[in-house]
Amino acid sequence: MPEAIDSGDMPDTAVVLAPLYPIHYEPIVRRALEEDLGRAGDLTTDAIVPAGARASGRIVARQPGRVAGLDVAAMAFSLLDPSVFVRVARPDGSDVEAGATLAVVEGPARALLTGERTALNLLGRMCGIATTTSHLVDRVGSNPARIVCTRKTAPGLRVLDKYAVRAGGGANHRFGLDDAVLIKDNHLLVAGSIAVAVTRVRDRLGHMVKVEVEVDSLDQLDELLRLGVDAVLLDNMPPDMLTRAVAMVDGRMMTEASGGITPDTVAAVAASGVDLISLGWLTHSVTNLDVALDFEAV
Amino acid sequence: MPEAIDSGDMPDTAVVLAPLYPIHYEPIVRRALEEDLGRAGDLTTDAIVPAGARASGRIVARQPGRVAGLDVAAMAFSLLDPSVFVRVARPDGSDVEAGATLAVVEGPARALLTGERTALNLLGRMCGIATTTSHLVDRVGSNPARIVCTRKTAPGLRVLDKYAVRAGGGANHRFGLDDAVLIKDNHLLVAGSIAVAVTRVRDRLGHMVKVEVEVDSLDQLDELLRLGVDAVLLDNMPPDMLTRAVAMVDGRMMTEASGGITPDTVAAVAASGVDLISLGWLTHSVTNLDVALDFEAV
Amino acid sequence: MPEAIDSGDMPDTAVVLAPLYPIHYEPIVRRALEEDLGRAGDLTTDAIVPAGARASGRIVARQPGRVAGLDVAAMAFSLLDPSVFVRVARPDGSDVEAGATLAVVEGPARALLTGERTALNLLGRMCGIATTTSHLVDRVGSNPARIVCTRKTAPGLRVLDKYAVRAGGGANHRFGLDDAVLIKDNHLLVAGSIAVAVTRVRDRLGHMVKVEVEVDSLDQLDELLRLGVDAVLLDNMPPDMLTRAVAMVDGRMMTEASGGITPDTVAAVAASGVDLISLGWLTHSVTNLDVALDFEAV
Amino acid sequence: MPEAIDSGDMPDTAVVLAPLYPIHYEPIVRRALEEDLGRAGDLTTDAIVPAGARASGRIVARQPGRVAGLDVAAMAFSLLDPSVFVRVARPDGSDVEAGATLAVVEGPARALLTGERTALNLLGRMCGIATTTSHLVDRVGSNPARIVCTRKTAPGLRVLDKYAVRAGGGANHRFGLDDAVLIKDNHLLVAGSIAVAVTRVRDRLGHMVKVEVEVDSLDQLDELLRLGVDAVLLDNMPPDMLTRAVAMVDGRMMTEASGGITPDTVAAVAASGVDLISLGWLTHSVTNLDVALDFEAV
Amino acid sequence: MPEAIDSGDMPDTAVVLAPLYPIHYEPIVRRALEEDLGRAGDLTTDAIVPAGARASGRIVARQPGRVAGLDVAAMAFSLLDPSVFVRVARPDGSDVEAGATLAVVEGPARALLTGERTALNLLGRMCGIATTTSHLVDRVGSNPARIVCTRKTAPGLRVLDKYAVRAGGGANHRFGLDDAVLIKDNHLLVAGSIAVAVTRVRDRLGHMVKVEVEVDSLDQLDELLRLGVDAVLLDNMPPDMLTRAVAMVDGRMMTEASGGITPDTVAAVAASGVDLISLGWLTHSVTNLDVALDFEAV
Amino acid sequence: MPEAIDSGDMPDTAVVLAPLYPIHYEPIVRRALEEDLGRAGDLTTDAIVPAGARASGRIVARQPGRVAGLDVAAMAFSLLDPSVFVRVARPDGSDVEAGATLAVVEGPARALLTGERTALNLLGRMCGIATTTSHLVDRVGSNPARIVCTRKTAPGLRVLDKYAVRAGGGANHRFGLDDAVLIKDNHLLVAGSIAVAVTRVRDRLGHMVKVEVEVDSLDQLDELLRLGVDAVLLDNMPPDMLTRAVAMVDGRMMTEASGGITPDTVAAVAASGVDLISLGWLTHSVTNLDVALDFEAV
Repeated sequence: MPEAIDSGDMPDTAVVLAPLYPIHYEPIVRRALEEDLGRAGDLTTDAIVPAGARASGRIVARQPGRVAGLDVAAMAFSLLDPSVFVRVARPDGSDVEAGATLAVVEGPARALLTGERTALNLLGRMCGIATTTSHLVDRVGSNPARIVCTRKTAPGLRVLDKYAVRAGGGANHRFGLDDAVLIKDNHLLVAGSIAVAVTRVRDRLGHMVKVEVEVDSLDQLDELLRLGVDAVLLDNMPPDMLTRAVAMVDGRMMTEASGGITPDTVAAVAASGVDLISLGWLTHSVTNLDVALDFEAV
Repeated sequence: MPEAIDSGDMPDTAVVLAPLYPIHYEPIVRRALEEDLGRAGDLTTDAIVPAGARASGRIVARQPGRVAGLDVAAMAFSLLDPSVFVRVARPDGSDVEAGATLAVVEGPARALLTGERTALNLLGRMCGIATTTSHLVDRVGSNPARIVCTRKTAPGLRVLDKYAVRAGGGANHRFGLDDAVLIKDNHLLVAGSIAVAVTRVRDRLGHMVKVEVEVDSLDQLDELLRLGVDAVLLDNMPPDMLTRAVAMVDGRMMTEASGGITPDTVAAVAASGVDLISLGWLTHSVTNLDVALDFEAV
Repeated sequence: MPEAIDSGDMPDTAVVLAPLYPIHYEPIVRRALEEDLGRAGDLTTDAIVPAGARASGRIVARQPGRVAGLDVAAMAFSLLDPSVFVRVARPDGSDVEAGATLAVVEGPARALLTGERTALNLLGRMCGIATTTSHLVDRVGSNPARIVCTRKTAPGLRVLDKYAVRAGGGANHRFGLDDAVLIKDNHLLVAGSIAVAVTRVRDRLGHMVKVEVEVDSLDQLDELLRLGVDAVLLDNMPPDMLTRAVAMVDGRMMTEASGGITPDTVAAVAASGVDLISLGWLTHSVTNLDVALDFEAV
Repeated sequence: MPEAIDSGDMPDTAVVLAPLYPIHYEPIVRRALEEDLGRAGDLTTDAIVPAGARASGRIVARQPGRVAGLDVAAMAFSLLDPSVFVRVARPDGSDVEAGATLAVVEGPARALLTGERTALNLLGRMCGIATTTSHLVDRVGSNPARIVCTRKTAPGLRVLDKYAVRAGGGANHRFGLDDAVLIKDNHLLVAGSIAVAVTRVRDRLGHMVKVEVEVDSLDQLDELLRLGVDAVLLDNMPPDMLTRAVAMVDGRMMTEASGGITPDTVAAVAASGVDLISLGWLTHSVTNLDVALDFEAV
Repeated sequence: MPEAIDSGDMPDTAVVLAPLYPIHYEPIVRRALEEDLGRAGDLTTDAIVPAGARASGRIVARQPGRVAGLDVAAMAFSLLDPSVFVRVARPDGSDVEAGATLAVVEGPARALLTGERTALNLLGRMCGIATTTSHLVDRVGSNPARIVCTRKTAPGLRVLDKYAVRAGGGANHRFGLDDAVLIKDNHLLVAGSIAVAVTRVRDRLGHMVKVEVEVDSLDQLDELLRLGVDAVLLDNMPPDMLTRAVAMVDGRMMTEASGGITPDTVAAVAASGVDLISLGWLTHSVTNLDVALDFEAV
Repeated sequence: MPEAIDSGDMPDTAVVLAPLYPIHYEPIVRRALEEDLGRAGDLTTDAIVPAGARASGRIVARQPGRVAGLDVAAMAFSLLDPSVFVRVARPDGSDVEAGATLAVVEGPARALLTGERTALNLLGRMCGIATTTSHLVDRVGSNPARIVCTRKTAPGLRVLDKYAVRAGGGANHRFGLDDAVLIKDNHLLVAGSIAVAVTRVRDRLGHMVKVEVEVDSLDQLDELLRLGVDAVLLDNMPPDMLTRAVAMVDGRMMTEASGGITPDTVAAVAASGVDLISLGWLTHSVTNLDVALDFEAV
């Protein structure tokens, strides 16, 4: 039976992007199109462009950056007209220079013009997240820390935002409230102590759920270390305090730095030796990458 | 700030049911009602029962069992008419005798008669799962093993099936493919070895994701022990082999027995010392609890 | 114009399965997939199996049984990846032996592994219902009775459950509250008498609606016979009482036995000469057929 | 237990309207509102009318007619603002004179102005259908025929159209393809003969399904009478031919006249003694009743 | 870059239909099919017509009229079975004679018979609107007036109704409350004066929003002329008063006649010189065009 | 009738926010909650916080800014539990200082903790857009220009993004492709000339649709001025060129500056005298306002 599944060509050493499923993003693209078409559709294009006209164009990056979201953007065209053809030139995860052609599109001119803005809104946001992530990963350098995003994503777009972080070389924290436990200050307030909170969680949850606890002092960390959870979120600690925290933990659980970290401070945070650096603004305050659709000869 | 959140009266020692959110089960109840009402509604009731008639009744168990799903069943009435009043007498998680009144309902007679079947279909299935789970938990006795369900649930009803298992005293395994890793035989086939499979997973996944691996021999288990994952699924092993496996693991990861376990064999399996016993038939081959709505004087 | 529609090859004598429409089951399969994929998809497969890997396999029955639901199961794969190819070997309605190959699947390895559980959950339930139905039909033997299901189906899955009963050789009772009238004890309670209930129904309903009345005594049956409805549900009557009821009815309406009938008693019930035997547990307490997806060489 | 359900005050002799369930019409009203509000809402009202302004008004009939749809129309306001109060003055099924007040509305002025058109579009159509039905019922006079509608309803509005026919004193034919059998000319073409078609249907369908066959000649009717179905659709027959058909049938099945019947011919058709007169244009070519919302002092 | 988009063959002088997007009408057709199929599908066809049977037919107009909605109708078949082939013979916007073949259909007999009513319900309504519109356009003759529809459309079908008006040679007024401002009597009542109402609108709305005001006297028109809005709705004015209004306006804004206009009066109204004639009954009181599906030899 | 509608207290001079309708934003909030809750809900809170615990807190701004979205955020709590009480302290459109309490919340502790992130994700984005808009409006100073947003919004969130711009003192451009015409470079490419494009649009569109044309040179502007459209988009012109363009237009149409405008250049652009300044980044590259939920004593 070893030949039952052809193992393909996955490079074992490379970090390969986990895929986005059309079953996940099709509703998002459809809603975005419906939002833009309204009831009467593209008044301008329908009045000016003949039904039979065809066009081709290139989706280009006007700035250097990291690509993410080409399949998602392509669906904006194919939902309008399945005959639109999109050929990807620089797949998700690629670093591209300003002016690079990310994909070539060809098809009915109306569908291309009508779907253009929806496609670019999706692509620009996803490339923007990937590009910023990639810059942060660069600043981490040879330190072990991974850049991770949070649940501070645009409402309704979490699967796209999380994917874009992966395309940028980052990793994903929880996808939601239900796939892992993160005990925060307000939970501790209710429980009365870290020990009570952790005990309640252990009594009630399944064996496949990891537990992370947020602490904001080394005293709290010391208390936590006796409880043996999977990870600690070190909240709003300066780099030197992080360094001490990492030493205290000494590999017994994952360490995550969080709170107020900026592009300017990320290198110093990474130098503390933490395993993870999480940043809310990576997905809640996105700067789009400037992408465009340039029409060309057909 | 200690007084900011009133910590209520949660008993620290008891396993308390994690709630079902209406935002989760309302669509399920609505679809079930739509399915039963069709386009023309309840022809019989609408023709015979006057609009102004009122009724009251008791939801009763015709058999002894464990209660689960009363809020879900109650919504079948309230979606038809928000004025229906349901008072829960024996809340979810209770053990009841044959003839026990689980809840009292009162309201417009049409809504009670029209919603009856939908309410009982939901409740009967959920109580059935809880009751079977509870029987299995009893057979485990003083052994440490927890009874857990799998992803073999009725399509579209997973959140209800999983909740009913909890109400029965069991625990939940993965809710889906995305909240933990479970490496099975076919994955190993592709990877070529357990080590390669585990490495690929570790390279690609976030820090909040646990990893379990399925093995069907003690040799495989030996190989796995060197890799340090979170749990092992011991597939289709007889009790004595499970006992040896538990000894080999010696507390270094969670041990789960799975495959072909029946009510008759569960005690022997539990005696092996495994941490978890998972059973697909708990949710894929449900025996409903016999519940009914008995109308009474108003 | 006789040649306008090619009449095909329908054998007039055979009971042919009324079809399931994709417009009906596609939403069910989609919800089941969404439920299993969650937000992040199949973490295990995506990490281990390369995007380009291909696989093939056989959907097999591990037990003998009656097939139902292959098109429904196949859609679990095609919604993930339209390029998955499924060839049906033993179509719905076939009786198969243990080990039989029901269908062959071929396509991207990721789609096959990710869709496997959803496909099997659907197929196992539907084959389970069909198989049990088929066993009951066998026990009816040469008696005229047809095995029919009720509205006690899994919430949201009624069209699949009803289809599976047909695939097992059974027939369908009402699909919901709106396609026929069934006057039950509580309706009689409101109306005051069978005559009043039947009159109200006749005054208010369209000419294409059949009327059945539930009775639990021969006196009630006698009263009903004077009213000339389409069918009578003989509730919880022992076989000899059923025999007397059938004699009293003497072909003037359809007779349906219901209530507490088991595989052990169904033959005796059938021998009473009733036209229909309805069983709630056929669909509310399903035992899945053990089906699996075995991967093979490609 | 006789007192278990208060039997209310349903007059046994009156035809009472089977209800419309909010679970049925809420999605229709919601879609209609979304369609009218678009993305930006009521530009005019929002710019001119202060948020705090209140108003009251009367929903009036500008023509005499039969009322249908007040609850449906009221929901157009309550979905915008649950605080809008609607008091029904002339309930569904009432005959009203020109100028009659059907209902009084009171609430936030913005919600009343914004919901006005959606409410009136629903109400005007439903009252229009009810009114025309009621006129046809009047023309039937003392003849036994009931006026029935067909499946020729506005796409997506069938439950409302069918309800309006009932409110007008008519009855409902099939709600769809799945609640009864109607064998038409094209089915006969495939089957080769009425006998084959009826046999196939009887072999394959449940016991709660009625069968009607369309015939367009007395020869066909003669053939059909030997098969004992539930109803015959006498297609496009002039009144004298209908009279002969009714005599041939002699009460052995329901007789339905259909095809090309107009307000001018309906009395003659009814005089033939048929049980049912069905008219597609009753719902496919509706003339709205002129209804309006007149604002009044608050 | 002039060659980047092939400009096709749009005739500059012809009024070309703005398209209907499948993304808009697919949900409408799907809902209509679901409404007709119910849970059990087409009982009659499924019982009588073999699965393998094929058929062909012609969609014909039984009356002369203007075609609209063929793509929409065709989707009723393709959603049931993607292999149904529809060839359009007389595209939307064509004038056809009684008996004309609008389209030819070919495919599985079941899909054609099952989808027939849904397809014809959609097509009959849309052709009906287009045909009436076209007759009104004819009566306008050489006068400049365009026939426009209002928001008085069938709930949920606005995009189809508006498209049908365009296919009939008419034009569309607002698609909803959010794409332009129309100040009516009740708004004036709140504002106190036309000037206040217009000022509030101008202060609050974007630069791409046009403003129309309803007036019912020449005094009001005089007041309005000083405010310079885009259009005036002349409500319920007789032709001679309209002529005076048009003279007063003298081209300074668009003039729209509305209220109580019938086929008999439309020519006189048009002769007044107004730019637009709007009619609510065009879409709220539709007379379907009689269209049918005639089966033919295959 | 003047007293029919109470005109309330709308200040005629203030720009008052057009409302967001719950019918619009409820689906967005629901999707965001579903996205965060997943299948299993808030594992952490459900395990630690007792069902009966109550809490109260303040939604505070950690930075100074402009408020937008409080009703939207509040719905994140009320969809979880309708008994949560939210009192708005600083309504949408208010300018607040760092530390300001925007609203007070009180209710079940679980609902508050579980809904917190969804509420803040919505509120932070909306306040962020409003705040940036407000800063840009400040820089415009006494110049006539209004700040307007574009269609470059986050997919699925356009109604929220547009509302937030209004709350910030900006105005809305088109809501989509269907509520006005904007002829861009690619449309001109197809048409061959501005004149042809404008003619096509005028021939085909309704009288309530405004037309804007994008030009990138003064020669194009000159050509456009002869055609008399409603607005011109002056693309990527430096301030001095804009000044010349405004002089050329001389009030004959609205002038909109667009392309590459930043906070640093907006004052210079405004000084050119243009009517509108549109900025894509206002909604595609949002910087969230830092908002938080601080729990307090109950």
